[in-house]
Formats: sequence, structure tokens, C-alpha cells
Amino acid sequence: METETYRVPGFKASAAIAGLKKGNVLDVGLIVSEIEASAAGVFTTNKVRAAPVILSERHLQKGKARAIIVNAGNANACTGARGLDDALTTAELVAEALGINSGDVLVASTGVIGQPLNMDRIEKAVPVLAGNLSSKGIPLTARAMMTTDSFPKMSRFDGQAGGRPYRIVGVAKGAGMIMPQMATMLCFLLTDIRIEPRDLRRALVSSTEVTFNRITVDGDTSTNDTALILANGLAGNRSLSEEDTDLFSKGLRQVMGDLAQMIVRDGEGATKLVRVEIKNAASSLDARNAARTVANSSLVKTAIYGQDPNWGRIMAALGRSGIDMIEERVDIWIDQVRIVGRGLGKGPEVEKQASDIMTGKEFTLTIDLHQGGHHDSILTCDLTHEYITINADYRT
Amino acid sequence: METETYRVPGFKASAAIAGLKKGNVLDVGLIVSEIEASAAGVFTTNKVRAAPVILSERHLQKGKARAIIVNAGNANACTGARGLDDALTTAELVAEALGINSGDVLVASTGVIGQPLNMDRIEKAVPVLAGNLSSKGIPLTARAMMTTDSFPKMSRFDGQAGGRPYRIVGVAKGAGMIMPQMATMLCFLLTDIRIEPRDLRRALVSSTEVTFNRITVDGDTSTNDTALILANGLAGNRSLSEEDTDLFSKGLRQVMGDLAQMIVRDGEGATKLVRVEIKNAASSLDARNAARTVANSSLVKTAIYGQDPNWGRIMAALGRSGIDMIEERVDIWIDQVRIVGRGLGKGPEVEKQASDIMTGKEFTLTIDLHQGGHHDSILTCDLTHEYITINADYRT
Repeated sequence: METETYRVPGFKASAAIAGLKKGNVLDVGLIVSEIEASAAGVFTTNKVRAAPVILSERHLQKGKARAIIVNAGNANACTGARGLDDALTTAELVAEALGINSGDVLVASTGVIGQPLNMDRIEKAVPVLAGNLSSKGIPLTARAMMTTDSFPKMSRFDGQAGGRPYRIVGVAKGAGMIMPQMATMLCFLLTDIRIEPRDLRRALVSSTEVTFNRITVDGDTSTNDTALILANGLAGNRSLSEEDTDLFSKGLRQVMGDLAQMIVRDGEGATKLVRVEIKNAASSLDARNAARTVANSSLVKTAIYGQDPNWGRIMAALGRSGIDMIEERVDIWIDQVRIVGRGLGKGPEVEKQASDIMTGKEFTLTIDLHQGGHHDSILTCDLTHEYITINADYRT
Repeated sequence: METETYRVPGFKASAAIAGLKKGNVLDVGLIVSEIEASAAGVFTTNKVRAAPVILSERHLQKGKARAIIVNAGNANACTGARGLDDALTTAELVAEALGINSGDVLVASTGVIGQPLNMDRIEKAVPVLAGNLSSKGIPLTARAMMTTDSFPKMSRFDGQAGGRPYRIVGVAKGAGMIMPQMATMLCFLLTDIRIEPRDLRRALVSSTEVTFNRITVDGDTSTNDTALILANGLAGNRSLSEEDTDLFSKGLRQVMGDLAQMIVRDGEGATKLVRVEIKNAASSLDARNAARTVANSSLVKTAIYGQDPNWGRIMAALGRSGIDMIEERVDIWIDQVRIVGRGLGKGPEVEKQASDIMTGKEFTLTIDLHQGGHHDSILTCDLTHEYITINADYRT
């Protein structure tokens, strides 16, 4: 059932147990396009970049690729020259197993930083991955790339271009080290639409801006963030009209938006998904900074966990965010309940209503600054005991 | 014993139960100088400023003051015109009870934001405070200003100026919303040295920069941060020589440094005190940003709680801090154990040694960037289950 839902013409995938992750679980995955595909990627903005990020970016320069290999359990980051060798060797092993060029293989890793990849295990796993490739394998790959994720993340969109149907399927992993700077996780997008690499890249970048760049879990940015897209053209459509391009962009935003939301919902230890909406900021930068500062404030996030409409912490976060603001102008809502009007609290009864809304799993926190005409929003989650447990014990 | 230690000639203090804080505990305090004192203050950089901050800054313009009234349990922040009226009324009540000018009264508040101060309770408490003033009362004031603090914070320095002995005593409260932007908590400093208001202010500002501006608990900056100093001149020293000024500045730094350290040690839920030292950054701004980003990273702080020398998170924090850095140049130490050399981990045995050090309550995390000649450091603490418990339940 699920395996049919996430099929894309011309793509096969598989997963295997390499032994990189603790427990006897899937931890490597492979995605292959039957034919050369247009390809694009966006990567972490962290100055410390993992070896697979460096390698994949290099392999994407020609705008074409055939395969993606992913592993969890080890990020192959901060591993120096050896790490880069290991990423390259991984691509070569895949190329050899598939009979393709190693320059057509993209590599992505996630997990612990600073430990060399166990290449014996990768070497043993690659033939298994190649042997098990199946058009039904995409959900398995989604499972293999999980680290502290509690569920695999998949989304689909069906569109038409010039009368020819096509599909976009995305898989992602997230959970921690999520902060809006470029991709902020691993995400692979597969589609059979026929599209030029340049147009594909443009669509990926602009969609990233409004999806993965608008989520935050803990304000930390990973060394490995990667979003890759392969478009193999098997839908057989002719050149895309403006309308076709719009629909494809919309579909991509929908799939990436779904995945982004799943990542926050599955933020490490998260129990609540909160959209922070900033209205009427003095500039777009102010709107963005206000949204990020509130969404990343430990005190706001623990108040959300406590289902406490403690708006003083929201005001304090706005006040330190560096934006233009006048305290007496600020309105704050929890969904439809206005808890602050012109900088002043609306009292215990209104806060009780807001607190009731906050017992739910999802709500919107809206802040109207009444300073100008710029808006922004970001998805965040609460900061919980479970986040501490996960991250205090991650490597042990 | 304690009461003698924290006596300063010419100062009296007291505390009382006004009923602003939950439980039947001291929650208001008063400090009075027998004679007019030179006075100075530094205040929060948050754009949302509590009423007592606005009032005290106004009263300090003349560089002189006689009294400080402080309350816990209610911050009198985000309370609009009424809040400012209430702060002024509080000053007037104190002035009336003491027979002094209300412009000589400084006001400081800490606690929940956004709720009006219960002025009936303040009005009843002020005569009690005035009636109980004693030269032994300073430790009681330190106790009354506590919120989530687990112990009162006091420090003392004894110096000489031109052969005349003088004393500096400081009291502070901290715990949460601690971030290095100006004062970051409440702190009152009392001394009998004779010093001009302008020189006093200069000493306070420069000492703040290397003490309270170098600590962080959770990256949030309060609306009420205030450090006030009163110097009543009863030591009877003549104008300060350069040497006298140096000693006074040193004493002030020592007292404020002690208090700053106590604040981090008593950070909400904190179990460990960690000094983050940045060495050889390309600029002083880089040194500062690197220190702050590492010290505020939720992932670094939970790893410290977990006693895990997870240096990958440190590298990732450096990489997103916006500083000039080259991964291959970075060295990292836990106390004397180098866990990273030239960007690469030193292996499990070395990490075991580092982990053993991290079981202690205090250690230094040193990062050498090898980029330039600029250094900085900051005190931080770990992020724990207890922080979540305290802050999820703060108002309930």
C-alpha cells in the first residue's frame, strides 16, 4: 500500500543494515534512477561542512546525477582528508555495483560527528543495497536515514505537465540540530518530470526558502544538511510552460512543506507544533528576526511545553531581538484569543482560554508589531524533558 | 557572623514579607544610606524595559541617591502607564517613610512579567521595611530579592584609599533569563568609599563588561536587569589617586565577578559551571560571537549535562557562529585534555579522560581557533531536566 503510494517511475530504492547505527536496524539506503536525471541540491550554511556535503556539491556541478547513497549513525563530519576519501570511496563502490560513473553518485550522511566511517561495513552493505533495489523501496530508504526521528517522513504530489502526469515524492529525516539556514536536514526529492537542471535548481532553492528555511527545533545548524532532487524526465513531457512550471513549483513546495512540518512535529522530544506568525514588522529582516528569536527562546519554548500563555517571555524575546518595536503597539494571539492588546495583558480569564488552546498539539502564536507592512512565519516546537534526555545521552 | 561580614559603614537594610511571592517568604527589601551617596547604574539592553528600570534610570541622572527598594515576585514589566505610576508611588512611599526626597529612591523589581503590582501590599510593607532597618540587614535583602535562586548571593572586598579603609559589598539575584547584554540580573553594590559619581559610573560600566556581560544561562535577556551602586563616602578618603582608583576597580571587579559566578552556578537547574575560553580569534567580535554561540548552544549544554565530550556539537556551533574559521586549525580542550587537534578528534581514550573531568562540577572548555590574536571567555552552565521543570511550571 505505502510502497505503491511512494513509487516514482524510473526510480528504484533499497535499504540495508550496515551496522553503523546501534541496534540491528536499517542504516544505509540507496536511490537510483534508471537513466541520468537532472539534479540539484542545497546544503548547510555551516562553515564546518561534512565530507559528503563537499563531495555531493562537487558532483552536482554538472546538473546531472544517477544515484544517492545515504547512511545514518555517522555524519562523516570533522573527519578531515580521510573523511573525504571515505565519501569518495563510497561513491565509487556504488558506481561499481551499478555500473555507472562515480561522478553520478551523490552521498549523504547523518549521525555522530567526528568519528571515521567504518568503510568495511559500507563496503559489505553496498552490494546488498544494489541487489535489493526495487521500485517499491523508497519507504525503506526513508526508514534507513532516521537517527533520533520517531517516524519516517514521506510526502507525495501528483501533477500534470502538458497533459502528461508526473509525480514528486520526498523523503526526509530531521529531529535535532534544526535551524533555518538552508536545508537543515536530509531530504531527497524524486520526480519523473522532464526539466532542465537550471530550472530544477531554481525551483528547489525557492521552495527551500519557504519550507525548510522556516522551521526550527533547537537553533543549532547541522554540518550535514542536504536537500537533493533528481528529475529523470520519464514523464515524457515537452518543455514546461509557465503554467506547468508554476504547478511543479507548487507541488514541490507542498511536498517540502509537508516534510518540514513533519520534521518539527518530530523535533527531539517535541509534544507541540507551533506556528509563530509575525505581522506588520518594519522590515522583512525584522519580521524574520522577530520570528526566529521568539521561536528559539528557551523560555518561550518551555512555557509552550507548560501550556502557559506566559506572554511576558514573548515580549522579552521581541525586546532582545534587535528589531524596531514599541512595546505599547504589540498585540499577541494564541490562535483566535488575543492575550495582549497594545502591550498589555488581557487578564487571567483570557489567559485561561489561551491555556486551554495550548493543551492541544498544534496552535498558532501571532504577534502583530504594528510597525510596518512586513510579515514572516516559522514553525517551532516546545522544549521538553525528553529533549534533554535524548541529547544528554546521545552518544552513550 | 554573616551579618557582620556584609556590613558597610553608613548603610542599613531590611526585608519583609509583602505577599508578592508565593509562600510566606521575604519578598521586599530596602537599602538606605545615612547620607546622600554617589550613585550609578547599568540597565537591561532589552527594548522592552520594566517600569522600575525607566524610573531608576531617571532618578540616577543627577548621580546621587539615598535608597533602593527591591521586590521579588512581580517584575512590574509590560504594565504600561499604570506600572510607571506604581514604581513612582513605591518611591514616594519609601521617601515618606524615611523623610527623604522620592527622587533619591531607586526601585528594582523581579518576577512575573505583565501583571500589575499589588500596591496595597507594597504600601503595607514599606513602613515595616523602614522600621526594621539595621546595619546587619544586608543579607536579609539578598534573601528577599531571590526568585528561582536557590541561595542568596553576596560578596565583599576590603580596600584602602589614601590610608583609609573602605569596603565594597554586593548582593545579587540571577537564575534565569541570563544573557550577556548589560547587567542581566539584579545587583546592588554598596561602598563607603568617597568617589565622584562620574568615576563611580565609569568603574561600574567597565566592571560590568568583564563580569555580568560575560555570563549566560539561557540566552534570554530580562526586561528588568539592573545593577546599582551607592558610594556614601563615609570612609573619609581624599580624592582618589590613580593607584586608589585601580584598587577600587579591582575590588569592584572581584565582587561583581564573584556574584556573576554565583549566578551561573545557580543557573536554573544548573549542575555544572563551565568557562568557555576562545583563543586566537580573527577579531574581538569573532572571539565574542564564538564564545556566546558555543555557550548558548542547547546541544552543547545538554552534552555538558550528559558529561559527554561531544566535540562535534562544539564544531557545529562554531561553524554557524558567523566567525572566520578553518576547521583544520581548531584545537579543543576540556581543562588540560586536548580532545581535538587541528580539527580532528583524539579518539576514545582521550575522550574518556575528558569525560572523567566532566563528571566534576566545574571545568574549562578551551577553543583555539588559530586565526588571529583575539581572546574572550564566558561562563555558562548545563541545560538540564530541572531547567525544563522550573520554566514549564514557573507561573502555575
